[in-house]
Amino acid sequence: MVDFKDKVAIVGIGETEYSRDSGRSELTLALEAIKKAVDDAGLSLKDMDGLFKFTVDSNAEEDIAAGLGIPYLRAFGQVNQFGGAACGMVTHAAWAVATGSCKNAVVFRALNGRSGRRYGAGAFHARAGEGNNAFSEPFGLLVPGQRAAMQARRHMHEYGTTSRQLGAIAVAFRKHACMNPKATMYGKPMTIEDHQNSRMVHDPLHLFDICLETDGACAMVLTSAERAKDLKQKPVYIMATAQALTGSIPPSYTSTTARVLGPDIFARAGITPKDIDFAELYDPFTIAVLERLEDYGFCKKGEGGPFVEAGNIEIGGTLPVNTAGGHLSEAYLHLMSHFNDAVRQLRGTATAQVKDAEIGFLDSGQGVGAVILRR
Amino acid sequence: MVDFKDKVAIVGIGETEYSRDSGRSELTLALEAIKKAVDDAGLSLKDMDGLFKFTVDSNAEEDIAAGLGIPYLRAFGQVNQFGGAACGMVTHAAWAVATGSCKNAVVFRALNGRSGRRYGAGAFHARAGEGNNAFSEPFGLLVPGQRAAMQARRHMHEYGTTSRQLGAIAVAFRKHACMNPKATMYGKPMTIEDHQNSRMVHDPLHLFDICLETDGACAMVLTSAERAKDLKQKPVYIMATAQALTGSIPPSYTSTTARVLGPDIFARAGITPKDIDFAELYDPFTIAVLERLEDYGFCKKGEGGPFVEAGNIEIGGTLPVNTAGGHLSEAYLHLMSHFNDAVRQLRGTATAQVKDAEIGFLDSGQGVGAVILRR
Repeated sequence: MVDFKDKVAIVGIGETEYSRDSGRSELTLALEAIKKAVDDAGLSLKDMDGLFKFTVDSNAEEDIAAGLGIPYLRAFGQVNQFGGAACGMVTHAAWAVATGSCKNAVVFRALNGRSGRRYGAGAFHARAGEGNNAFSEPFGLLVPGQRAAMQARRHMHEYGTTSRQLGAIAVAFRKHACMNPKATMYGKPMTIEDHQNSRMVHDPLHLFDICLETDGACAMVLTSAERAKDLKQKPVYIMATAQALTGSIPPSYTSTTARVLGPDIFARAGITPKDIDFAELYDPFTIAVLERLEDYGFCKKGEGGPFVEAGNIEIGGTLPVNTAGGHLSEAYLHLMSHFNDAVRQLRGTATAQVKDAEIGFLDSGQGVGAVILRR
Repeated sequence: MVDFKDKVAIVGIGETEYSRDSGRSELTLALEAIKKAVDDAGLSLKDMDGLFKFTVDSNAEEDIAAGLGIPYLRAFGQVNQFGGAACGMVTHAAWAVATGSCKNAVVFRALNGRSGRRYGAGAFHARAGEGNNAFSEPFGLLVPGQRAAMQARRHMHEYGTTSRQLGAIAVAFRKHACMNPKATMYGKPMTIEDHQNSRMVHDPLHLFDICLETDGACAMVLTSAERAKDLKQKPVYIMATAQALTGSIPPSYTSTTARVLGPDIFARAGITPKDIDFAELYDPFTIAVLERLEDYGFCKKGEGGPFVEAGNIEIGGTLPVNTAGGHLSEAYLHLMSHFNDAVRQLRGTATAQVKDAEIGFLDSGQGVGAVILRR
């Protein structure tokens, strides 16, 4: 077994503007974000020889390479699971760099999530009625929000969690977005009463429990820790990564695969949840954040509600979460905008900077993948 | 940089029957092949914690896991590029095992390629007219065979290659298939005159220059070299792997990315083409084999025709190729049936056994991926 802890670093980040109608193809968005990430690293596009992407991203590897003039990709692959793909994609790119299969790997996500394919719409699913979906879709369980509503209701039933507590998550992320000029919700502060008064969409989830839809793209460049030393930016090291997928219905409706993935990744990193300075958690819905705060052990099971209500996840709290505003208030780019802010936090250049941030935790999907970064 | 040479082994192989109308779903085919591969390794399905697949395979990771009772996948991913995916998929599984991200990884390919989606039909392409296809499809260049015909015609023009020389490839693979009871063309010998008299499909390619269409599935199990020692089968070690994708039109119509991938993989393995005892080359068309024999350096550029005509690629020749019959005469399963026979060759249990086979070379796509195995 070959340990790759701290052997790979993120050395460049890039992103387009976030909008509701880009007026551009997902390919041009991807190319812009990747070009910016490569520039940020102080590298040339010709230095790039690895490319990893979301399976659901519409851009083909060869079109990205052709569009940027990347002559030769030595490592490439894809990860499925929609919002769960980001950490897996970074994991695979890190494997490729750590094994010397490529030198400099690009990872990216581009989507016209508002003006093009809308993930929240049931019509999106290519596999409607197939596989596991055959057991739920004929009964009207079609869109992600419906599933999340069931999780929220069950959490309320089992642990006494309240809508105001879920709202505390939305309010915290909005505060961070209001410090981030790039965020969709910049300049639009929100109170807990605003949350409570927002339209009920999937009972008990209000409009402000639900993420944005965004057109845009984000990208990062990974290279070896050795090469990173000589590059433009302060390197951000990958301490550990993990993926998790279970083949069966989860043991309960209030927990996620984070319960099995957490012990794996903390053991690999050689740290505990207490060592984490900030977390970037995939937040399609407020309830998803609550569950994973518990499942990773950032607080005890069932105590997520009081934990967030006490302000722990805000900048200045014990564990700031989604420091750029998250999917709820910055942009919906399948955790890749979170990744970019995690890198800024560890460089010390974030708009809502966590003081002395040394170690950051990222989670994509509902515990489908995780990455721990350090400065 | 972390070298993973010889650190990962293939310890189990499995396959369904090959047919033209399986009457079964691609999911049940996949489950059967994977179950057999795990049994072959002497492992339990519960031991499997990695799963890597073709992007174009219709089976979702979670459905495979649920269907087999695999409780928890710690590593999973996909590789695109159709027939080019197999070696990349094995590469990624090897990374996952080598880095300790999972212990035992499954790789597989299942398709009803005859009774379901037919790859040779232009209608298959989901991205018709998109990306690079926009430059060719409006002009009638729709199916893979048309592209291969242009490559064949150009090779004939530049190097004097003949249809009979391409036929020598088909005849060699048919001989191997006639020694393999599982092969679709078992019991159906073919002469060079049969090839010449077969219907012209894409001039200058005859029917027998073109691969089969098959319903079926193949799978393999990978684990660490350490764990492999204690398992049921003689381990087959992964010496080196490589992937290659170019973003632009190839420099000539008679060569492939094998020209750039070859030096990479031979350097990583620390050997030369002369050290290879047999090769398993993706063979959708005879011309594809000819080009890669040249591009990898198994013979000189332009001398592929005389090389195959002299019998070098037959069992007993200097470099037996596609020892189970290949896509032309065994089955069309995107190199995965080739992989299974490579493992049998290195275990010494092949139906057309290469004497004292120590090192085997595999190539998927047109130089999109390669793997070198040793016993």
